[in-house]
Amino acid sequence: MSTRPPLARLGLDTGKKARLHRILHQHGLRNGTALFLPYDQGFEHGPRDFFANPGASDPKYVTRLALEGGFNGIVLQVGLAEKFYWDFAGELPLVLKLNGKTDIPSDHAALSPVHADVADAVRLGADAVGYTLYVGTPAQEQDFAQYRQVRVDAERLGMPLIVWAYPRGAAVEAKGGKNSFYAVDYAARVASELGADMVKVNFPHPDKQDDVPEQYRAPVTAQEAVDAVVRSANRTMVLISGGAKAGDDAMVEKARQSMEAGATGLIFGRNVWQRDHDDSLRFVERLREVLTKYDSAP
Amino acid sequence: MSTRPPLARLGLDTGKKARLHRILHQHGLRNGTALFLPYDQGFEHGPRDFFANPGASDPKYVTRLALEGGFNGIVLQVGLAEKFYWDFAGELPLVLKLNGKTDIPSDHAALSPVHADVADAVRLGADAVGYTLYVGTPAQEQDFAQYRQVRVDAERLGMPLIVWAYPRGAAVEAKGGKNSFYAVDYAARVASELGADMVKVNFPHPDKQDDVPEQYRAPVTAQEAVDAVVRSANRTMVLISGGAKAGDDAMVEKARQSMEAGATGLIFGRNVWQRDHDDSLRFVERLREVLTKYDSAP
Amino acid sequence: MSTRPPLARLGLDTGKKARLHRILHQHGLRNGTALFLPYDQGFEHGPRDFFANPGASDPKYVTRLALEGGFNGIVLQVGLAEKFYWDFAGELPLVLKLNGKTDIPSDHAALSPVHADVADAVRLGADAVGYTLYVGTPAQEQDFAQYRQVRVDAERLGMPLIVWAYPRGAAVEAKGGKNSFYAVDYAARVASELGADMVKVNFPHPDKQDDVPEQYRAPVTAQEAVDAVVRSANRTMVLISGGAKAGDDAMVEKARQSMEAGATGLIFGRNVWQRDHDDSLRFVERLREVLTKYDSAP
Amino acid sequence: MSTRPPLARLGLDTGKKARLHRILHQHGLRNGTALFLPYDQGFEHGPRDFFANPGASDPKYVTRLALEGGFNGIVLQVGLAEKFYWDFAGELPLVLKLNGKTDIPSDHAALSPVHADVADAVRLGADAVGYTLYVGTPAQEQDFAQYRQVRVDAERLGMPLIVWAYPRGAAVEAKGGKNSFYAVDYAARVASELGADMVKVNFPHPDKQDDVPEQYRAPVTAQEAVDAVVRSANRTMVLISGGAKAGDDAMVEKARQSMEAGATGLIFGRNVWQRDHDDSLRFVERLREVLTKYDSAP
Amino acid sequence: MSTRPPLARLGLDTGKKARLHRILHQHGLRNGTALFLPYDQGFEHGPRDFFANPGASDPKYVTRLALEGGFNGIVLQVGLAEKFYWDFAGELPLVLKLNGKTDIPSDHAALSPVHADVADAVRLGADAVGYTLYVGTPAQEQDFAQYRQVRVDAERLGMPLIVWAYPRGAAVEAKGGKNSFYAVDYAARVASELGADMVKVNFPHPDKQDDVPEQYRAPVTAQEAVDAVVRSANRTMVLISGGAKAGDDAMVEKARQSMEAGATGLIFGRNVWQRDHDDSLRFVERLREVLTKYDSAP
Repeated sequence: MSTRPPLARLGLDTGKKARLHRILHQHGLRNGTALFLPYDQGFEHGPRDFFANPGASDPKYVTRLALEGGFNGIVLQVGLAEKFYWDFAGELPLVLKLNGKTDIPSDHAALSPVHADVADAVRLGADAVGYTLYVGTPAQEQDFAQYRQVRVDAERLGMPLIVWAYPRGAAVEAKGGKNSFYAVDYAARVASELGADMVKVNFPHPDKQDDVPEQYRAPVTAQEAVDAVVRSANRTMVLISGGAKAGDDAMVEKARQSMEAGATGLIFGRNVWQRDHDDSLRFVERLREVLTKYDSAP
Repeated sequence: MSTRPPLARLGLDTGKKARLHRILHQHGLRNGTALFLPYDQGFEHGPRDFFANPGASDPKYVTRLALEGGFNGIVLQVGLAEKFYWDFAGELPLVLKLNGKTDIPSDHAALSPVHADVADAVRLGADAVGYTLYVGTPAQEQDFAQYRQVRVDAERLGMPLIVWAYPRGAAVEAKGGKNSFYAVDYAARVASELGADMVKVNFPHPDKQDDVPEQYRAPVTAQEAVDAVVRSANRTMVLISGGAKAGDDAMVEKARQSMEAGATGLIFGRNVWQRDHDDSLRFVERLREVLTKYDSAP
Repeated sequence: MSTRPPLARLGLDTGKKARLHRILHQHGLRNGTALFLPYDQGFEHGPRDFFANPGASDPKYVTRLALEGGFNGIVLQVGLAEKFYWDFAGELPLVLKLNGKTDIPSDHAALSPVHADVADAVRLGADAVGYTLYVGTPAQEQDFAQYRQVRVDAERLGMPLIVWAYPRGAAVEAKGGKNSFYAVDYAARVASELGADMVKVNFPHPDKQDDVPEQYRAPVTAQEAVDAVVRSANRTMVLISGGAKAGDDAMVEKARQSMEAGATGLIFGRNVWQRDHDDSLRFVERLREVLTKYDSAP
Repeated sequence: MSTRPPLARLGLDTGKKARLHRILHQHGLRNGTALFLPYDQGFEHGPRDFFANPGASDPKYVTRLALEGGFNGIVLQVGLAEKFYWDFAGELPLVLKLNGKTDIPSDHAALSPVHADVADAVRLGADAVGYTLYVGTPAQEQDFAQYRQVRVDAERLGMPLIVWAYPRGAAVEAKGGKNSFYAVDYAARVASELGADMVKVNFPHPDKQDDVPEQYRAPVTAQEAVDAVVRSANRTMVLISGGAKAGDDAMVEKARQSMEAGATGLIFGRNVWQRDHDDSLRFVERLREVLTKYDSAP
Repeated sequence: MSTRPPLARLGLDTGKKARLHRILHQHGLRNGTALFLPYDQGFEHGPRDFFANPGASDPKYVTRLALEGGFNGIVLQVGLAEKFYWDFAGELPLVLKLNGKTDIPSDHAALSPVHADVADAVRLGADAVGYTLYVGTPAQEQDFAQYRQVRVDAERLGMPLIVWAYPRGAAVEAKGGKNSFYAVDYAARVASELGADMVKVNFPHPDKQDDVPEQYRAPVTAQEAVDAVVRSANRTMVLISGGAKAGDDAMVEKARQSMEAGATGLIFGRNVWQRDHDDSLRFVERLREVLTKYDSAP
């Protein structure tokens, strides 16, 4: 088991430390771990994601669920933040997602356009911002350019920056795909090299080895893979993404392995709200049982 | 029947609330519903739309018709607004349409260029601005970029933002087309996630299922589809578009279903003015009879 | 009796005409006259103005009074507008007062600093802005400089500009004082020459003749004086101020003379709210009886 | 016969009205009609246009011709305006053409780049600016973007804006071509929707019906077509272009039909100066005989 | 007893509401009341204030005291915030005091220059900013000008603005002095009219009546005076200042009267840290006992 370093050892300036302290030690389990609820799938995938539980189409329902479930924060696009966060302002940390796109046109040169800036996040009382970086996309020059502005603004305003580090593009597909150990490990490192305070990655699949660089072809366990990913991220805290809804036991086991590796927390959306209300809270409770074992000092 | 929330519950700032109050409670039926007259078809389709009733080519005739018909507002491009709105200034709310294009070149990478900004709308005494967002277009990066500027300016100046959320582009055509339930539902959600105050959509067609995501292949009624669209839009008020001229009874029934779903109103152009003056007013009267049953408090 | 020209004949651009139409023809008596409630005395004079009726200290009470009394608008400083106007947004026109000062330091070189700009008024959904110009102050260079910016912004954004034209300073005191016919007449003209859309002046006192220029020493009636003031203002509409609370009959007679002279309306604060609620409304009703006789077409 | 509205009824601001009054009522026939001499063919087509009358290659010759012929203005690109207009400054109104291109590369994605701005026109004492808009071009996004800047500057500076509304591009060629009634009618409307003060169009050819929208396939006379075009332009004044040199009687008849339809005037270049000096003036005299019958009040 | 309105009824935007929720409901007694520790006396008065308890000269000692005492926030100038707040970031809300001055030169035209801006407060993770406004100073034009920038930035960034509303200047001294009921009441109102979210005032002394306006010469109790001050502040929350160290029982009684009047809380510095550590905490405990009785809902 890796040891998560306390906030005070992560090279953070005052504002980022203040806001991360709030997220990690004044909300959720208040033990230095994090459980985030992302809620931008209506934009990224469309309302089809709500068909399993139509009530989840309502941002008020989902925000209240985040509050009831003891989450450390909810992730919203600017439009929903402006119309819904006032009702909960200050009760639950807000992560303002700064970019996003629909999944309608092709993903071959994926780029996620910016819809809001760090000053919007400040204005809305958010405690962090989120940015999707498509690691490996042919559009990486535009991606890095807009990311750079976000990073610089986040530093100037003391706002923690969470990077959704997503491998994407034809070259990624040709070398193991977007969830391979190779791709996830690389994505985590890129976020760290470019100054993310937290990085959201998918759980790495070490068995996806087709055409990955040879170093990633040795047999490693899932635990070893996620250990390596957290190590690649170094002082950038790691959040493991739930992704599409899957079996509860498998998800909980991945959560456990992630935390064992030294991750700071989890970011689970569809696995949480694509079921009825009480079932959502029961599943969240299982995740919290995992997190409670991995506390760290401020 | 869904309940439309009052203006005071939509997360609006002072200026947007003031202007929407004016539109919804001091014009038209003054009962919280809306009936808008769009009049930019001469630009979007060309004067051919006026051949059925040549008098409709005259912006003064159409604006007066909006006043006589008790509409909640008229939608104009900047050129017509500058030359004609002075005559009616303050008598009828103006929605300044900020972008637009001709239908002469191909639509495969549709983008609607901006012709005026929110400050122009302020200067002209408009009570809202309109922006066409082509959801799904390969040009979404440019579209989102120019939309973002409009949204930010609209917030800064307290100007309500109505998004024409139109699915467009090859990928849309390949998955059910622009009027499918899938496409309309997605478009309504995107407008909401990106901060529209109102969204104008076409009536959804649940039978258009070719190659739509599997969630949209179950048999649903028209009423269920429009219910879902309004739900996807959440605190973004929904306006149902009339589209090309069709049978009156069918249009009135769609209007009724839309309002039953919780829409705020209708935006009907060609169905109104592509007939003679008295016939126009008779048809408007039928729409008003529908709207009168769906009042909501301020 | 002078004839007030309709809005369409005042050389107004579209936005100003739209907003003035709203104020003059969609609120109050809807007959082209105006009755405004100014409520910045807590700033200009301090809370002592509320001692006669402590409830008037509450901006919500006074705003509701303006609504109940059928006023054409309420005048607020930016702080009260931001915290209180949302509740009434769109129901009652807002005039945002852009400058103001306390009466604590000496008035010998009076200047009223700017606290908000025209864009703030737009953002808050105001239908006009107010600016106090101290005609005759030794500080007139600074006063004119900040006024100029307000005028330019008001034109750019189509926002009606109401000038509180107040004679002030040692030279004014030495020539008949701030309420002399000479001083009020000059102040009205200055506002007109500098582009005000409306000008608020005190009722002129033709008997205050000490050391006024000789042209103002001929005996004229109060009616002749106010006739001249309105004529000096030409296409700048005139609002006559109530000033400190005085006898009701005298105030109503001044109101009548003002309207007879061609003024557009009245702006009465302390005379209205420095008494109990029902008495306030009774007095307002007397003013409305006057205004109802002086309607004009849009 | 349509009635041309006077300048005072066109929704113009002060500066535009002042300059158009000068053009229409203090030059030419001084009766509200216009006859412009365009002289940018050396740029648009090259010097081949001067081979029929080599003297016409000299800007001084052509400008003097405009003065002798009693034109309401001459249209020049910035280079000729800077070197030749000084000689005639104030004697003859100048229309500064702000964009232009050679006809050497293909026209399939036609775009006319901007060479000067509205402030240049002010500096040179021009009374109007001209802009070529290629309606239907695949490059419409760039075209609209640069046009927008011109429109905004023209409004800010009170400068009348004349739009050369030219249908262009593959889609136009595929639907009746650039002189079809369909294309000319659409182009006139686009100029009006986007705020042109005058629009220059070619005379419409209702017989060009191949693949035009069905509304344009009914048999109409030339007179009916030009009537419709003027109606589509509404408060945007219409100038009918002469185009390539043709038979005098045919040109005069087109001029008569245009004026009968309510056009404001004519813009004839090659038909005027592609012949010797005296013959030019004789032809101009025939055009003036037409215009003299269509006077309108200021 | 007045009823303090909940945060949701104060006309606050999202960011201000979020930060005030944090201060009032996630720190201190978490019951909607506030107890702030101001610590800028070393700047305003010099180190002489620390002589009673030399340990209080150490910002770390005082910040820890604020944490131990369960304060809702500590107030620091930018220099101390930059060097000391990192240690406590997020554990205790920071109020960044944006302006300040020494007491060495005369106070006759008092003005407190700005040392940091709202963006600095954001960068340091502060939850509010403080600004000293010298109500009545002859320098009010400069004071209002720099205040205006602070207010605008605070709105743009959603940062709560606490105004230290201090009557100052010769005119104030000539009319009852800076702690008179008249002066304190006026100061509270000015802060409210100019958009403060909270206002810090001294406890009003109704017996200081020399040359105050006649309305303030009637005999009123201390309770009636502080009631009036809170009423004058309306939706601007009131903090009562402790001022110079005085008897504990008297201070606690003033605290009780203030809360009874509807104040939101207290801001006590010297009374707290001008004694030894344990005695400080004992006194704080007495203040908390008062505050605990005046809870309000979020």
